[in-house]
Amino acid sequence: MRNLSISLALLISLAACNTVKTDDRTVVREIYARALSDSAAMKNLQYLCTHFPGRIGGSDEAAHAVKWVTGLLKQMDLDTVYLEPLMVRKWDRGEKEIATVNSEKEGKHELTVCAIGWSVGTGNDGISAPVVEVRSGEELKALGEAGIRGKIVFFNQPMDPTHYYTFDSYGESAWQRVYGASEAAKYGAIGVIVRSLTMARDNYPHTGIMHYKDSIPQIPAFAVSTLCADSLSGWLKQDPHLNLFMRSTSRELAEVQSYNVIGEIWGTEKPDEIIAFGGHLDAWDITQGAQDDGAGVVQSIEVMRLFRELGIRPKHTLRVVVFMDEEVAQRGAKAYAEGVKARNEKHLAAIETDRGGFTPYGFSIDASVYTVARIRNWQEIFQPYGIWFFQQGGSGVDIRDLKPMGIPLLALVTDSQRYFDVQHAPSDTYARVNQRELQLGSATIASMVYLLDNHSIQ
Amino acid sequence: MRNLSISLALLISLAACNTVKTDDRTVVREIYARALSDSAAMKNLQYLCTHFPGRIGGSDEAAHAVKWVTGLLKQMDLDTVYLEPLMVRKWDRGEKEIATVNSEKEGKHELTVCAIGWSVGTGNDGISAPVVEVRSGEELKALGEAGIRGKIVFFNQPMDPTHYYTFDSYGESAWQRVYGASEAAKYGAIGVIVRSLTMARDNYPHTGIMHYKDSIPQIPAFAVSTLCADSLSGWLKQDPHLNLFMRSTSRELAEVQSYNVIGEIWGTEKPDEIIAFGGHLDAWDITQGAQDDGAGVVQSIEVMRLFRELGIRPKHTLRVVVFMDEEVAQRGAKAYAEGVKARNEKHLAAIETDRGGFTPYGFSIDASVYTVARIRNWQEIFQPYGIWFFQQGGSGVDIRDLKPMGIPLLALVTDSQRYFDVQHAPSDTYARVNQRELQLGSATIASMVYLLDNHSIQ
Repeated sequence: MRNLSISLALLISLAACNTVKTDDRTVVREIYARALSDSAAMKNLQYLCTHFPGRIGGSDEAAHAVKWVTGLLKQMDLDTVYLEPLMVRKWDRGEKEIATVNSEKEGKHELTVCAIGWSVGTGNDGISAPVVEVRSGEELKALGEAGIRGKIVFFNQPMDPTHYYTFDSYGESAWQRVYGASEAAKYGAIGVIVRSLTMARDNYPHTGIMHYKDSIPQIPAFAVSTLCADSLSGWLKQDPHLNLFMRSTSRELAEVQSYNVIGEIWGTEKPDEIIAFGGHLDAWDITQGAQDDGAGVVQSIEVMRLFRELGIRPKHTLRVVVFMDEEVAQRGAKAYAEGVKARNEKHLAAIETDRGGFTPYGFSIDASVYTVARIRNWQEIFQPYGIWFFQQGGSGVDIRDLKPMGIPLLALVTDSQRYFDVQHAPSDTYARVNQRELQLGSATIASMVYLLDNHSIQ
Repeated sequence: MRNLSISLALLISLAACNTVKTDDRTVVREIYARALSDSAAMKNLQYLCTHFPGRIGGSDEAAHAVKWVTGLLKQMDLDTVYLEPLMVRKWDRGEKEIATVNSEKEGKHELTVCAIGWSVGTGNDGISAPVVEVRSGEELKALGEAGIRGKIVFFNQPMDPTHYYTFDSYGESAWQRVYGASEAAKYGAIGVIVRSLTMARDNYPHTGIMHYKDSIPQIPAFAVSTLCADSLSGWLKQDPHLNLFMRSTSRELAEVQSYNVIGEIWGTEKPDEIIAFGGHLDAWDITQGAQDDGAGVVQSIEVMRLFRELGIRPKHTLRVVVFMDEEVAQRGAKAYAEGVKARNEKHLAAIETDRGGFTPYGFSIDASVYTVARIRNWQEIFQPYGIWFFQQGGSGVDIRDLKPMGIPLLALVTDSQRYFDVQHAPSDTYARVNQRELQLGSATIASMVYLLDNHSIQ
């Protein structure tokens, strides 16, 4: 009889196991079906992009966007919606930037440029100097002070197209935009102009953040469209002595009050244990901020809608966090992490979506090997929806400050082929977002949240 | 000593195995890197789409496209390039179609329509009748002759958005376009107007092939844009008695000579054993045929270029087949299969690419379980490039006639989210194709061909 009871117990536990799995599959199928049938997220994205474009931290557009998102969440039958205050740095682009090539041999040409975010201006009169092109840090170093002093350095290292994951290419080239000004100023440059960080060959300039290094003179930095970068490179070959005129009236202003926007559905069993997810509301001043990161914002809100509309009552508290200031100083991320620590909150996991509303294929997971293995067990449930990638790796800048608290961090990973075509450029418009691709992201996060809520990963 | 020799043999074989794998990985990495660095395929696609749009079988555009592809292959240092003759059916759309809603209550409205491919015309005077809307075969049947005789049937079953793989949704809805006319004519309808097979809500009509059933009267069939379909449905709710006027002068003409275009790189070891791959050159008359299937054509040509430029000498013969007439009667597919049979050729495998130049994620494989398992062994080599899906399933209509000969058939499977946004519509333009996504397809086929050439799968 003993053997029989063991067999029975085993059978029951296997049956229970199967039941759970079948339920999981059914719920996940419902989540995807509901998400793919609905246009709410796309309509939200269109509204956000067209009413509050250029909503960089500290701008009026950002303040209006905070109000709009708060109102949207308040209409959603959540258990609470509130603001988390923080201070953000403020920068003003000033008048439209000018960059003009002057060459006796090649003629006079306007370049399509923008000041890189947080660049100093050139002064009202602008600056004018010969241009020296470099394609690597080694070339810069080799030129040295003799080749650079008094000149404008043209950083023209293209993004390497050979990587499958375009964020890898970005990682290799971004130094030009972020640190190029200080690197060139070390050798006496008076300005820099940087090839836009995109593999698209078009006429949009791509901005982004830059940082000046301490005790190095702060010189103005522009981004130039890839088409104009190629032209400039060609003209320089014909006339190495051509002059470039740059003018920008950008400047930093006093810090401004802003907010993260937070909404919650309280857990029925363990309301003190939180599953957080979010994207960032701020977007560069010259963009609509559709893929970066309006998509992440509306997807995170959509997760709440899916739980409510499907009548799923979570056991733990679901918290959507709409972060402020990701693009500049991650003050929203810091405020959120400090709040979690101060309140001694328990998080089961935090999920970030900030890689565009493209077809997702998995999660990068910053957690123990054991946790990654537990999550990977759900691969079979996700596979019918093209989700197969569950790998240990970095998450995202809005949740990384939660890492010291031992919280498992997940980042939604999407098809990255088109991301840098539009990132930080005027071409990042809602019209370039596909509703189905966007909603696959919403459904993937909602499904992960559902599974995290129903199964222990620790 | 015996045990030692076995261990040594094992070690050597393991080492050999590892060497092969490392080589495979290196070559595959080179293939992807080269493909992602090059714009040749995109330039070919742009040329094909802008110089030979609307190249449906039998058209002048198709004839010009055949010449252009032949010339392109002849410039490529292949071992042979030749044409495979075949006869294609020819159909002429005639004058721009007209469809006008006439309602005392709702006013007069033009609808954006096109005749479905191979529809009969309405006669010069057009036809006019009340409209009856149906959303399923059951609704049609329920209406019966009493509800349908003398009327125009409006098929308005939307594609089901809840499937992840949009070809599944297409499969469920395509009957309206393909067989709707005959189904309605059975009950005495005088014409049909069919909601375009797309999930996009826009104002493009989507054409495609239709078939009349024997001994049922042939009535004219139009496709209507989804926006106009929604409008028409709304007007019908307000005025169930509204009239629709349809006019089309489309007609079938005599058959025309056409060709498959074939190019080969002869194998160094087994030139009589062939790995074939291709897409179809013909495209609907109202489209540029970019995703369907200019993408497949240029990808297949790109495979040849990649082998040549990387200096890879295949052991078996590589054959690119640019098929004619996929959209209508697959005469190219039939001619090719008949040729293979008549010449008693041995094929190691045939690969079709006809699901758009979107990011690929794997292959659907029509072969024995054993062959599928062998191919799945390469998953690890492909995974760094997002290729993870290797499943037994249907291949494609241009290679399926090779199945009776026992040839393993593979179809490149791509991210299908955007495919039906443009399929068979004027919106299927090269500008909507992303170069990286397109080239990932070229590289994935080239890598599969390389692995098939180097490892037995049978």
